[in-house]
Amino acid sequence: MYFLLKFAPLLLAVSVSHGWLFGDFVGKQKELDEISLWPLPQKFQSSAVAFKLSPARFQIVHAKESSAGPGCSLLENAFRRYFEYMFGEVKKHEKNRKKAFDSDLVELTVWITAADPECDGYPSLQTDESYELSVDASAVLKAANVWGALRGLETFSQLVYEDDYGVNNINKTVISDFPRFAHRGILLDSSRHFLPLKVILANLEAMAINKFNVFHWHIVDDPSFPYMSRTFPELSQKGAYHPFTHVYTPSDVKMVIEFARMRGIRVIPEFDTPGHTESWGNGMKDLLTPCYSGSTPSGTFGPVNPILNSTYEFMTQFFKEISTVFPDAYIHLGGDEVDFSCWKSNPDVRKFMEQQGFGTDYSKLESFYIQRLLDIVAATKKGYMVWQEVFDNGVKLKADTLIHVWKERPQYQDEMAQVTAAGFSALLSTPWYLNRISYGQDWGNIYKADPQNFTGTDAQKKLVIGGEACLWGEYVDATNLTPRLWPRASAVAERLWSDKSVTDVGKAYNRLVQHRCRMVKRGIPAEPLFVGHCRHEYKGL
Amino acid sequence: MYFLLKFAPLLLAVSVSHGWLFGDFVGKQKELDEISLWPLPQKFQSSAVAFKLSPARFQIVHAKESSAGPGCSLLENAFRRYFEYMFGEVKKHEKNRKKAFDSDLVELTVWITAADPECDGYPSLQTDESYELSVDASAVLKAANVWGALRGLETFSQLVYEDDYGVNNINKTVISDFPRFAHRGILLDSSRHFLPLKVILANLEAMAINKFNVFHWHIVDDPSFPYMSRTFPELSQKGAYHPFTHVYTPSDVKMVIEFARMRGIRVIPEFDTPGHTESWGNGMKDLLTPCYSGSTPSGTFGPVNPILNSTYEFMTQFFKEISTVFPDAYIHLGGDEVDFSCWKSNPDVRKFMEQQGFGTDYSKLESFYIQRLLDIVAATKKGYMVWQEVFDNGVKLKADTLIHVWKERPQYQDEMAQVTAAGFSALLSTPWYLNRISYGQDWGNIYKADPQNFTGTDAQKKLVIGGEACLWGEYVDATNLTPRLWPRASAVAERLWSDKSVTDVGKAYNRLVQHRCRMVKRGIPAEPLFVGHCRHEYKGL
Repeated sequence: MYFLLKFAPLLLAVSVSHGWLFGDFVGKQKELDEISLWPLPQKFQSSAVAFKLSPARFQIVHAKESSAGPGCSLLENAFRRYFEYMFGEVKKHEKNRKKAFDSDLVELTVWITAADPECDGYPSLQTDESYELSVDASAVLKAANVWGALRGLETFSQLVYEDDYGVNNINKTVISDFPRFAHRGILLDSSRHFLPLKVILANLEAMAINKFNVFHWHIVDDPSFPYMSRTFPELSQKGAYHPFTHVYTPSDVKMVIEFARMRGIRVIPEFDTPGHTESWGNGMKDLLTPCYSGSTPSGTFGPVNPILNSTYEFMTQFFKEISTVFPDAYIHLGGDEVDFSCWKSNPDVRKFMEQQGFGTDYSKLESFYIQRLLDIVAATKKGYMVWQEVFDNGVKLKADTLIHVWKERPQYQDEMAQVTAAGFSALLSTPWYLNRISYGQDWGNIYKADPQNFTGTDAQKKLVIGGEACLWGEYVDATNLTPRLWPRASAVAERLWSDKSVTDVGKAYNRLVQHRCRMVKRGIPAEPLFVGHCRHEYKGL
Repeated sequence: MYFLLKFAPLLLAVSVSHGWLFGDFVGKQKELDEISLWPLPQKFQSSAVAFKLSPARFQIVHAKESSAGPGCSLLENAFRRYFEYMFGEVKKHEKNRKKAFDSDLVELTVWITAADPECDGYPSLQTDESYELSVDASAVLKAANVWGALRGLETFSQLVYEDDYGVNNINKTVISDFPRFAHRGILLDSSRHFLPLKVILANLEAMAINKFNVFHWHIVDDPSFPYMSRTFPELSQKGAYHPFTHVYTPSDVKMVIEFARMRGIRVIPEFDTPGHTESWGNGMKDLLTPCYSGSTPSGTFGPVNPILNSTYEFMTQFFKEISTVFPDAYIHLGGDEVDFSCWKSNPDVRKFMEQQGFGTDYSKLESFYIQRLLDIVAATKKGYMVWQEVFDNGVKLKADTLIHVWKERPQYQDEMAQVTAAGFSALLSTPWYLNRISYGQDWGNIYKADPQNFTGTDAQKKLVIGGEACLWGEYVDATNLTPRLWPRASAVAERLWSDKSVTDVGKAYNRLVQHRCRMVKRGIPAEPLFVGHCRHEYKGL
């Protein structure tokens, strides 16, 4: 592609050490504000030279050299989606593609360079999401595969801005971009409150706009079990808030996974055990530990019962199903906050402890359970993520286990250092529990937290694969989830995508204000940062 | 009406001192939870005897003796609205009104007893909102006027609950109800963020569900002036965020007032001066005080300029318009948070201070301005509300002025005592700044605050006419306003309507959980109090 080659030296020349600059933009602050890329690309150069985009003529097309073509429905869908974001729904489209004026940009050419564009694949932790974008008299987006192309299409759509006549413009631009971290996730909790499919899909859309690539689906927990299992249908029949209206059917789950895939987002389900399992007990007899009051069962139940063979037989069958339903290479196995009091109360558990030589150290019993569970899941050929307690308790883990750091104590910096010193990959969530709210702007602290901000070697820093913003469900449901998450999660998005030097909260503010208005314009009810307005206010309710 | 007369002795007999009881409800906790009246009526008796309501047969009709009939469009609209809340949109309705089964309730008869039902009137501070409701083999709602009938219709609709078959039921019930306070308001701020009409109307609907009766429309402030004035169109043309998309046209304002009227809600606009007026200055030359930097104007502007005659000529014309546009007997004139620094910097103002003998006490200048403004507004025959500073600064006030208490310091109890000791009516908002949020449930403290909780005589207590929940607009707009306000404002609603003995947060919790689900079912995205679910989850986004 001649065009890109021609630009390559220029691109390199302007890529200064802090990763980005706005070279020719002096005096063009207004347009800059209106462009307001988020998250900020790694390398970016733009000039004041602008081209106009006509909805009647503009189109996104496959490059002749591209390994993807009109048969790549993932890209075709993305072309339509971004066309509509830029122009709304347009009635008239001229077939004549010749330029009406020299100042028009009539085409974005998308060029997938790898032999396999991965049109029908799934993104993974190893996915290359980099892309190169150049906009001049013609525009080219170049990426190894569809996943990078999706990121580049989002960036292209963010470059387009309305001038005072309402005409779409785009400035001459060269971008070379890639994510700083490979795992950039959002955790949603569909157990404490059931989240209708519509809400999940809307948030997947918002995730794509922010270049997030992992939906961590905390799908079940103590309060309810909305996942409809084919192997154990009673789990949701008896464990969901309602067996029909408050469940995710196999087809719902498929739809979430496909909707996410179309946006380059992995879906990692979490089935947290042995704690946080109260709702499992409704539909699965003998799975949970009976708690005792003195010498008699109290009628209440504790964590998964780790002393019965039936428990492991159940888990084997259950995770066999999960491993086929969810295509991602990872499953999140939880392992957090196990309350030992019920185990301690149960005479059979105590006897088992004695037999195993665990003394009174119940974390050994927890490790015993987790160890067997990990073996079960490993047999399904899946990798696993676990909350930090599993590491803290010294459970033997496969080398590719991802440790999810979430606790305030010890400080997350210490924990990240220890996890990576032990050679494990680490994910950070501690500073990003977005369910925690306070009055006023709190996105600055969210923005400032850095997953590599701990004392360690370069090798340790490389083991940090990213992080997740978590929105636990105690106080959110369909009524308030989306505005509570956005644009606060956008702060996490930029931290995980952009260069580590991009830390100026003041500069970020103006871009984020515009970015949240962009989300609003696209139908996402992202809440305001402060006093002000959007050109297109939220039209829903 | 024989039926009501027959019940009157029973009603009195069961009205125990704390104002309510659930006499026959032992063992019927489930239904009780599902009824969950909010706010709790003053006197209430219910029994386990239930009647079924069929959407094909049930209707709400005017009593023969009623002074209102089918020509009363306010009631006709309310009948339709509540029918739809109870049954959804129903296709089939049988004309044959005869009972199919003895266990059916086929009719609610609404009887307006006063000679003038006030169908075409507006509610006021003096409005009688009391009503009596009896449900047995037939049901009668009796009220002096349409305003009480609206409250009773809401209560009737709250009594209706779905049984396990999805059939609507209502229990045998007798209610005698009236508000504890006459002024029960919600403040929304449409200046810091523009609130589309749709959002305002949805919140008026939610207000009616909670028996609020005042919409305090903080319509303009420093950031923007969205009120489109006929007399001074430049105020919004130059002072709104956008002169067309971010303004309230005269027709918008009319629609808000009429929508509110149909729900028994007064609309009290606030035009806050002399502070909080930055946006006024864009469209009205010389209205604001030019600030000085040393001996030269700095180019910035402060509060309304109190030393020019043109200021008072403008205010006279402006409030003449406001007094005709808004039918309510009261206008809120603000008067809070006047920053003296600009006045102090201005040599003309300093000279004026000297001439008037104010020394360096700029609160005297503020009082001078407010005094003249109050005279101007009094000439329009309107009453006025003012924020507490106007009282604190010793401005001479008409006896019927309402003092709006909002500050934390001095404690609101001291301020309420002082205001009422001076013989003025007081409104409380201090504990109800609902824009202030924190993590977790905060409605308990909102619920516990009582406007009469101060040291004073009975006469002083009687001067407390109610309160307002305030949702200032720094951090809310169409994307997040409604779930942030509801059901937290419902806590204020019950405090201001129900008997003062109704203070048990634990008992209120269960009712409020159900009440918030009722709002959700009616399309209001009221946020959850805690973990759980609603039978009908929110269907919007």
